[in-house]
Amino acid sequence: MNFVGSHILSVSQFERDDIESVFSVADQMIPYANRERVTRVLEGAILGNMFFEPSTRTRVSFGCAWNLLGGDVRETTEIKASAIAKGESFYDTARVLSGYSDLIVMRHQIEGSVEEFASASRVPVINGGDGSNEHPSQALLDLYTIRKEMEGRGKQVDDLRIALIGDLRYGRAVHSLCKLLSLYTNIHFTLISPSELKLPEQYVANIEARGHKVVEMEDLQAGITQADILYVTRTQEERFPSQEEADRYKGLFRLNQSIYTEFCEPNTVIMHPLPRDSRGDARELDDDLNENPNLAIFRQTDNGVVIRMALFAMILDVADKVEDSAQEVPWYTEGRFRS
Amino acid sequence: MNFVGSHILSVSQFERDDIESVFSVADQMIPYANRERVTRVLEGAILGNMFFEPSTRTRVSFGCAWNLLGGDVRETTEIKASAIAKGESFYDTARVLSGYSDLIVMRHQIEGSVEEFASASRVPVINGGDGSNEHPSQALLDLYTIRKEMEGRGKQVDDLRIALIGDLRYGRAVHSLCKLLSLYTNIHFTLISPSELKLPEQYVANIEARGHKVVEMEDLQAGITQADILYVTRTQEERFPSQEEADRYKGLFRLNQSIYTEFCEPNTVIMHPLPRDSRGDARELDDDLNENPNLAIFRQTDNGVVIRMALFAMILDVADKVEDSAQEVPWYTEGRFRS
Amino acid sequence: MNFVGSHILSVSQFERDDIESVFSVADQMIPYANRERVTRVLEGAILGNMFFEPSTRTRVSFGCAWNLLGGDVRETTEIKASAIAKGESFYDTARVLSGYSDLIVMRHQIEGSVEEFASASRVPVINGGDGSNEHPSQALLDLYTIRKEMEGRGKQVDDLRIALIGDLRYGRAVHSLCKLLSLYTNIHFTLISPSELKLPEQYVANIEARGHKVVEMEDLQAGITQADILYVTRTQEERFPSQEEADRYKGLFRLNQSIYTEFCEPNTVIMHPLPRDSRGDARELDDDLNENPNLAIFRQTDNGVVIRMALFAMILDVADKVEDSAQEVPWYTEGRFRS
Repeated sequence: MNFVGSHILSVSQFERDDIESVFSVADQMIPYANRERVTRVLEGAILGNMFFEPSTRTRVSFGCAWNLLGGDVRETTEIKASAIAKGESFYDTARVLSGYSDLIVMRHQIEGSVEEFASASRVPVINGGDGSNEHPSQALLDLYTIRKEMEGRGKQVDDLRIALIGDLRYGRAVHSLCKLLSLYTNIHFTLISPSELKLPEQYVANIEARGHKVVEMEDLQAGITQADILYVTRTQEERFPSQEEADRYKGLFRLNQSIYTEFCEPNTVIMHPLPRDSRGDARELDDDLNENPNLAIFRQTDNGVVIRMALFAMILDVADKVEDSAQEVPWYTEGRFRS
Repeated sequence: MNFVGSHILSVSQFERDDIESVFSVADQMIPYANRERVTRVLEGAILGNMFFEPSTRTRVSFGCAWNLLGGDVRETTEIKASAIAKGESFYDTARVLSGYSDLIVMRHQIEGSVEEFASASRVPVINGGDGSNEHPSQALLDLYTIRKEMEGRGKQVDDLRIALIGDLRYGRAVHSLCKLLSLYTNIHFTLISPSELKLPEQYVANIEARGHKVVEMEDLQAGITQADILYVTRTQEERFPSQEEADRYKGLFRLNQSIYTEFCEPNTVIMHPLPRDSRGDARELDDDLNENPNLAIFRQTDNGVVIRMALFAMILDVADKVEDSAQEVPWYTEGRFRS
Repeated sequence: MNFVGSHILSVSQFERDDIESVFSVADQMIPYANRERVTRVLEGAILGNMFFEPSTRTRVSFGCAWNLLGGDVRETTEIKASAIAKGESFYDTARVLSGYSDLIVMRHQIEGSVEEFASASRVPVINGGDGSNEHPSQALLDLYTIRKEMEGRGKQVDDLRIALIGDLRYGRAVHSLCKLLSLYTNIHFTLISPSELKLPEQYVANIEARGHKVVEMEDLQAGITQADILYVTRTQEERFPSQEEADRYKGLFRLNQSIYTEFCEPNTVIMHPLPRDSRGDARELDDDLNENPNLAIFRQTDNGVVIRMALFAMILDVADKVEDSAQEVPWYTEGRFRS
């Protein structure tokens, strides 16, 4: 695909080559995200960071990525005060807001809302999450993390063995990641979930149609023994019909250091789309894994910044101009490190 | 009036010459709002975008206008967390906040609050809306839009025939626009509303005292036949004593393409202060007008940006310095267009 | 202490020399806060302004201080939408957010939360207030104000006579200020409060252990007769077990101009951490003092900006680079003055 001027609404837009080109630009962004250099290539450009469903980390990550390219951010953080709540259509909202900014990131809880919004927008739109549907930059940062972790272990994405664990029914991060991984070769998926929270059939079918192997099971310990990546998820409580129903699955699968040591191959990578639920009755990923160097969850969020910088740079066609305005960072950055 | 260092609190501050000078600076801002050029004239200046009543579009429009001049924006989006909620006076709030920024835009639901605030502020204040009282930048952008639409049709504001439609009682946008139009010559006002939502007598008296013609009626179709501009409004539900009372007027006047075709002169301009209510039982302005080139509602919001840039530039006396720091825009803007 | 790369969590970190060095850098920041000059030393740096407990003035003050050094601000204004509300640990939140910004200011209502957060953060953290525990930049700006007010009267901080008035139990501003003042010589503290809201014993003991004099009383008029500074506080309603209990102390001590004239020495300085409660039944500091030139409450908030600029500049080691990028301010600033 041609990224210039395009909306990014779904991972279904991407072919393998597209992903690789995003990753290549993301690599180029690392010195800026690491504060080794500063660029001002988007100085004067405005991001409309429109979060009609609350979020802290995704919103701040997008805003930060834009700032790191030199641009300004205008944002909204909820729907309550918006014109949408007064009966305005997505069409109108899009026509208005796209007159204010150079690119819009939009999150809204209604599935398909961002696509509807984008079709009326006069500037490119990135889907920052539309309900349980799509959140393409999350899937890209997950795959980028997998690629980097595998490279660090002398492997690659092709031939990957990945175990997806937990709420595979409502977790859109998992859905999108499955789609992206399917573009690669010979992936072995182990799907570990309670039967009520299985990966929806359409995703399984898509994986198999692409020639990958899928094994489904309900037993955590059996499922994690031969994996390169464990991708653990939180129960998506807010997507369940009721809190009571969500609570039934809380804490069903718990990975901790002793289980890891006993059942996993050495250097098995642990990922999670975050936030992980650290309350006593949940703990799908125990705090005692925090010192485990294979815990890649914060490398994931760090990678989110460079992935989003890459998307911005490619959509606005400035990837090759980033270095033109590059300068040294004059402030103290020594304490800073990439985990 | 002298704009430099002044508060902008009410449209009553303006004479016709003042308005024309704002419009002239606004014209000068178009290349920057259109991303043909970037200026950094306000680099280092801080806008205090203080919205104690929620708003997305007005808040973002002001913030965007400031960013387009190169400045930074600090903002608040509600009253709940504010010191005002802890019993602080507007005097104190103003003394404190005016120590933080170079100019303040304030919205608050209490009528007269912004004026009280401004009297204690140490920096210029623009009224971003105080209840059903004033919202002067909205009136300016409306009139600016009328002028541009008329120019495009070989006409001017003088001798304008305008039909104001809907909730003329609570709609402050209508009130302020009437005041501004009254400064011009020979305007013909057709006021179309249910009798309970008529334009308050004081506004009618003011229009007539200035020598303009006013006709009031309750029939939409009869009222729109000989107009240059149809200015349609939403029922201001939030200003009504109760939702029940507001609901009685919902959907009372509905303009759509077939009515437009049957009753309006060709090229009659359609305006609306937005948001329009697109829910089934409201629809004062039907979606089937979206492809009608005379629908100027998104040109209005676009014009809001340049009007606000003009106010900022005039108050801070940088209108003639904007071009000093002007540069080419290095990012992709082709998809961008002014509707 | 060495400020470079350090967290600022508590006033207990400071020795007298440290305070003096902050004040010296703060003095250097005045021309920038006064808009006599603009600096861009932090251009490209990102502040994570993370307010998990709502606040307008402190949040805006920190954000403004960062902008005045040339940096960008990403922020959050409440806890509701945060991952913390979904069960995320402070550890995780810190690991994630510290990948986005160069420095974090954090406010959270739980005592000790900011310290826990900082221990996991990869970038320096400033405590913007953790419940009734600490808010070190407030204490620094208070002491900086005292120093400047005393200097203007030919005095100094040593030998100061200060009366602390009101809710001394829950007011963290008072607690921290007592600690800082204790680092100086021969301070005379008069503590005026209802017996139930007395300064907690540990603070009194600390003051006395440092050799200062403490007098406690419940009578406002007797307590303010021989003071250089009156530091008046609001009843910290939100810290009380119930609103009813808080209401019992509302309006118990009220300072107004006639009491000031009758009982205070000429030029006694009046301070308050703000907001003051101006509602009829509270009014711990009457509006009729607003024209009294000894009312220093807005000089306090102004001083907050330069103190926060100083902390940022020292932590990021750019204090001596601020002037390198300094320029004239091209916009109108004449109306601006420091109260």
